[in-house]
Amino acid sequence: MRIALSTGGGDAPGLNAVIRAAVLGALGRGWAVYGIRRGYGGLLGTDKVVALDADSVRGITHLGGTILGTTNRGDPFGWRETRPDGTIVDMGDRSDELLAAFSAHGFDALITIGGDGSLRIAQKLFAKGLPVIGVPKTIDNDVAGTVMTFGFDTAVSTATDAIDKLHSTAESHDRVMVVEVMGRYAGWIALNAGISGGADVILIPEIPFDIEKVCAKIMDREARGRRFSIVVVAEGAIPLGGHRVLKGAASAGGGMEQLGGIAQQVADAVGQRTGKETRALTLGHLQRGGSPTTFDRLLSLRFGAAAVRCVAAKQFGVMVALQPPIVTAVPFSEALGAPRIVPLDSDTIMTARDTGVCLGD
Amino acid sequence: MRIALSTGGGDAPGLNAVIRAAVLGALGRGWAVYGIRRGYGGLLGTDKVVALDADSVRGITHLGGTILGTTNRGDPFGWRETRPDGTIVDMGDRSDELLAAFSAHGFDALITIGGDGSLRIAQKLFAKGLPVIGVPKTIDNDVAGTVMTFGFDTAVSTATDAIDKLHSTAESHDRVMVVEVMGRYAGWIALNAGISGGADVILIPEIPFDIEKVCAKIMDREARGRRFSIVVVAEGAIPLGGHRVLKGAASAGGGMEQLGGIAQQVADAVGQRTGKETRALTLGHLQRGGSPTTFDRLLSLRFGAAAVRCVAAKQFGVMVALQPPIVTAVPFSEALGAPRIVPLDSDTIMTARDTGVCLGD
Amino acid sequence: MRIALSTGGGDAPGLNAVIRAAVLGALGRGWAVYGIRRGYGGLLGTDKVVALDADSVRGITHLGGTILGTTNRGDPFGWRETRPDGTIVDMGDRSDELLAAFSAHGFDALITIGGDGSLRIAQKLFAKGLPVIGVPKTIDNDVAGTVMTFGFDTAVSTATDAIDKLHSTAESHDRVMVVEVMGRYAGWIALNAGISGGADVILIPEIPFDIEKVCAKIMDREARGRRFSIVVVAEGAIPLGGHRVLKGAASAGGGMEQLGGIAQQVADAVGQRTGKETRALTLGHLQRGGSPTTFDRLLSLRFGAAAVRCVAAKQFGVMVALQPPIVTAVPFSEALGAPRIVPLDSDTIMTARDTGVCLGD
Amino acid sequence: MRIALSTGGGDAPGLNAVIRAAVLGALGRGWAVYGIRRGYGGLLGTDKVVALDADSVRGITHLGGTILGTTNRGDPFGWRETRPDGTIVDMGDRSDELLAAFSAHGFDALITIGGDGSLRIAQKLFAKGLPVIGVPKTIDNDVAGTVMTFGFDTAVSTATDAIDKLHSTAESHDRVMVVEVMGRYAGWIALNAGISGGADVILIPEIPFDIEKVCAKIMDREARGRRFSIVVVAEGAIPLGGHRVLKGAASAGGGMEQLGGIAQQVADAVGQRTGKETRALTLGHLQRGGSPTTFDRLLSLRFGAAAVRCVAAKQFGVMVALQPPIVTAVPFSEALGAPRIVPLDSDTIMTARDTGVCLGD
Repeated sequence: MRIALSTGGGDAPGLNAVIRAAVLGALGRGWAVYGIRRGYGGLLGTDKVVALDADSVRGITHLGGTILGTTNRGDPFGWRETRPDGTIVDMGDRSDELLAAFSAHGFDALITIGGDGSLRIAQKLFAKGLPVIGVPKTIDNDVAGTVMTFGFDTAVSTATDAIDKLHSTAESHDRVMVVEVMGRYAGWIALNAGISGGADVILIPEIPFDIEKVCAKIMDREARGRRFSIVVVAEGAIPLGGHRVLKGAASAGGGMEQLGGIAQQVADAVGQRTGKETRALTLGHLQRGGSPTTFDRLLSLRFGAAAVRCVAAKQFGVMVALQPPIVTAVPFSEALGAPRIVPLDSDTIMTARDTGVCLGD
Repeated sequence: MRIALSTGGGDAPGLNAVIRAAVLGALGRGWAVYGIRRGYGGLLGTDKVVALDADSVRGITHLGGTILGTTNRGDPFGWRETRPDGTIVDMGDRSDELLAAFSAHGFDALITIGGDGSLRIAQKLFAKGLPVIGVPKTIDNDVAGTVMTFGFDTAVSTATDAIDKLHSTAESHDRVMVVEVMGRYAGWIALNAGISGGADVILIPEIPFDIEKVCAKIMDREARGRRFSIVVVAEGAIPLGGHRVLKGAASAGGGMEQLGGIAQQVADAVGQRTGKETRALTLGHLQRGGSPTTFDRLLSLRFGAAAVRCVAAKQFGVMVALQPPIVTAVPFSEALGAPRIVPLDSDTIMTARDTGVCLGD
Repeated sequence: MRIALSTGGGDAPGLNAVIRAAVLGALGRGWAVYGIRRGYGGLLGTDKVVALDADSVRGITHLGGTILGTTNRGDPFGWRETRPDGTIVDMGDRSDELLAAFSAHGFDALITIGGDGSLRIAQKLFAKGLPVIGVPKTIDNDVAGTVMTFGFDTAVSTATDAIDKLHSTAESHDRVMVVEVMGRYAGWIALNAGISGGADVILIPEIPFDIEKVCAKIMDREARGRRFSIVVVAEGAIPLGGHRVLKGAASAGGGMEQLGGIAQQVADAVGQRTGKETRALTLGHLQRGGSPTTFDRLLSLRFGAAAVRCVAAKQFGVMVALQPPIVTAVPFSEALGAPRIVPLDSDTIMTARDTGVCLGD
Repeated sequence: MRIALSTGGGDAPGLNAVIRAAVLGALGRGWAVYGIRRGYGGLLGTDKVVALDADSVRGITHLGGTILGTTNRGDPFGWRETRPDGTIVDMGDRSDELLAAFSAHGFDALITIGGDGSLRIAQKLFAKGLPVIGVPKTIDNDVAGTVMTFGFDTAVSTATDAIDKLHSTAESHDRVMVVEVMGRYAGWIALNAGISGGADVILIPEIPFDIEKVCAKIMDREARGRRFSIVVVAEGAIPLGGHRVLKGAASAGGGMEQLGGIAQQVADAVGQRTGKETRALTLGHLQRGGSPTTFDRLLSLRFGAAAVRCVAAKQFGVMVALQPPIVTAVPFSEALGAPRIVPLDSDTIMTARDTGVCLGD
């Protein structure tokens, strides 16, 4: 057996751990393993295919980034290449070439690690006959079919750590601090980090927020002698009657560039209405990088090993998924439905309300 | 409504977060909340009952320990007190006194946070009419009915961090390092931390180990130029045909005192058989203390809030439990069956095997 | 003896540790200790004076923030108060009132923990007869007379951790990431964190930078296949022939609000000149908050204890200072000269150059 | 120019950072750089010499261990080799062979990173004509001539973190916890970590301790309702009228193996005298491993760069040293005098006493 690994999309803590477990799991079965560098570029001529052995994956479990390189441009059904002068050239549908290259290498299966976009590509390649297995990768944790994706626990930890740090400063300056975290369609990071970090207000895409309610909470604290407040806002949070302030492709990287994004808007609105000093901070890429938490290390290793077991069982067209307490596999179709958003009746939402957090409604 | 909180048994990261959410959840409903200090001592005269308000629980989410104080001696059905001279006096069954004191305080419900022992006591008190709700607390993660207990993720992180630190030292000295972690009946900490930390051998109570297999793994690595190995062993691991080396009550605190415990035995046996330099390290109490991880903070807050919702629903005789993705409640009887051990066919066990870890069998 | 403690200015990791050592050091000598809450507000009627005992300072060494509360408005020589409606009223010189209140409380000495501004106030109060000792507090590490100030090591660690996290993301996206850190007049944080985090370019106030040199470094890396770069820029960095982009009072809190600040300017300029995707991130308040590193804990405790020994020796009008390996005291005049900037011939600058870092010149 | 790098002795956090800066500093000057693997084994036939380029040292600043491998057996003046069957063979003085091999490789200079023993070897090789520069490496921080060695700040942080974790557990169990940290002749780690972690008793080699004083402190706390205590003891601490309990060669690796070492002795003695439950924990190798703190990263990089500047200046027979605020170089003779111990009149000792810590005297 010869199998190939590829990664697509942005960085996520745990990528290397997935790769390590997949490589060791394959080698242990006597298979050969290859890495397709930089998305599908390794098969389509912009990068290469490299053999992976035990030495390739030694000591990488806790390292951020990926030994295979990632890329945001990698759809073989609409291939784009960047010329040395920086111009981007549209190369059209190269999926047939990809399948031909896959065969030419003699590969028996592909394990691809990627987000929503990458998994949709995998689904289309599977429909064209490619024996492929997906490993879900999204910091936002909004892939359907799995209770958690790797990298999410690390992102929540990073965001909580930032909220912790801002707490004492907000308090010492009597300020309202508005912290923007990732989450375009789902508020998982904002909700989990906000509760864990003791935020006073948490605004998520699932609950359009009333800025008056936010201000009322802040002034209620003021009246009780708590002259500072922490507001955590997901990048995709929406004001009542408003719409997302995301700026399309420009924010693909994680929102850091959203000067004038939702955090700044909330800070400005709160400042005008309450007369309080406010400050906005967008965590952006900080949430995507770094060494995975222990939880994410283990989940990533379990995902990588499970993907190899799917190959061994010739179970293709599926995505590995955490359905606690076990890691299993679900068909692409199940994973690629609507994004998994925070249920409004979940106990985590209730925990926020019970502990006095304002959710903007 | 007047409710009371108590904690029993040893330390666990997240105790204060449970207390905080329970207090805020109760105050938010207009109830009064009281803390029974040091187990049931606050009701039985060795300590006191204190009123808890929002100020009592401000800023404690991330703090280790507990603002209520814990104790290892607290069974009202067989009460023991320590005299100033250090002697321990058996005071017999004081459960009726406890119920009387509970009524005298005008309490409507008790939320008790504790491990296996404390939950059994709660079950007996419930049978005698006490309106009680349990919150499971065990570092070992072996309580039935819940997929995870708070403090476990922190313990696994601490153990993984220790394994990380030992790795480079083991390598630089060509040594076999044997690390003993908690887990008397279940190998969750050893398995999760061992995989995450890249251990070469993991020995858990669920799989009696053959020391020859352990040595074969180490010598196989040696033959491939890897002159060091890391062995992670749960305190309750059992050699094939042997029995646990736990020393009963003496190790109640977490095993640190097990000089000559299982880690040392494994180290000695490996040293004799392989001629390698070996070292044993028992992490002991380090695993119980410290600031909870973000995961444990959130789980603890969810548990505390869920317990209050049980009170509001007059749902007594239950333990809150994580059944992902939600926190719910299960009857004491379900929680107090056999300890929840690692299923031998779980994907985590398969992950260990797939990545080349020797499990001693 | 009765002594008083006050803190001025913004947050700094280690404030509580200074307070703890000062309180314990005073109590151990049989003195009474009082905390003046929120700058000098406790003496001038906007807040109060509280007695501090051993319980007040238990377990606070590792906590961020300060148990005394801090404030940015606290100059008794030009007192300003904020009315409930948010307007700020100038109350004029209230320094005589302050001295009178100090005497009325029967205080024998004041230990004041603060930055440049607070120390200048202390110097003026000392000139008017107040027996005062200063403890230097500035994240920027630019106070003369001391090799290090507490909080600096924590800020450098926080910034380094952020650079670490951005590394893998920058690499996976082929981007130039520009990270702005604190440092208005001195580049200590940028230099130390930049070197430790493996930055490619570090821009500090001490070395006016040539944007062409910055771009040349980035394109040189590109030519060697390194398609990403990390630029660390101090908030006070100055382009050749340009001037600081700091926005005066508006950035007093730490620079986070500098949308359009130096990081964004550098990112825009690099993007235009190189055609690379660039992103700016301003760490701002993240650098001021959080739990102190072990180094800062110890330095803070040493500072607090040293201040009390100065009181015991009736050595007033001085600031405690680290002159390794010892903590000693220097006259205010020595501390309040020009800010301590990075010497251009220091070995740290040479380390940056030796390891290939571009300093913009 | 062709230069060589070697490392000797055990692990220390920061080794890779020293190597990185030395390699980049040399490459930047147009030199060739080689690593001698596993001590001098690379020159004496038990291992090899490898060329080091920029790729060799990419991304290693924060990694524990060393890319060159270390070894505890590496004295060319008394060479010992381990046979495959485990027996150790004495090969006598091979220093002439070493010099010959050095010349045969065409090396112009050697940078050797090592502790006391390795530096003495370097001094002897220098006397025989080898152009060598030392970089001091000792966790214990007891090398003369430098105010700090790399790895020390990390070890203190690890020990402080452990004390933090033990605090809440000690409190919840009313126990006396005795924590043994590294420090054979000097108490730097015990003193710094003990103060930072809020220990009640700190025992260091510089101050022979009176066990009665230790017990008096513990009972004094008991009398004030503090029913637990934390004792931090350096491995080389000595009871009044007693002698070190170190077990010679057996404890070379860091003391973890000292079952029955000083911590256990103190715990036993305290338990007998006070009737309190006591527990001993020896941190051992945990203090040597792991990722360096930011402080240690920077110091290591500065050391590595400084060593290369010494080569460029043909300044041999010296050790790089931190004499704050700069890194400089001192003759071997200055570095190899008596170990640098804690001065009894240092302000750190006074800080301990001022904050109520018992030092056993």
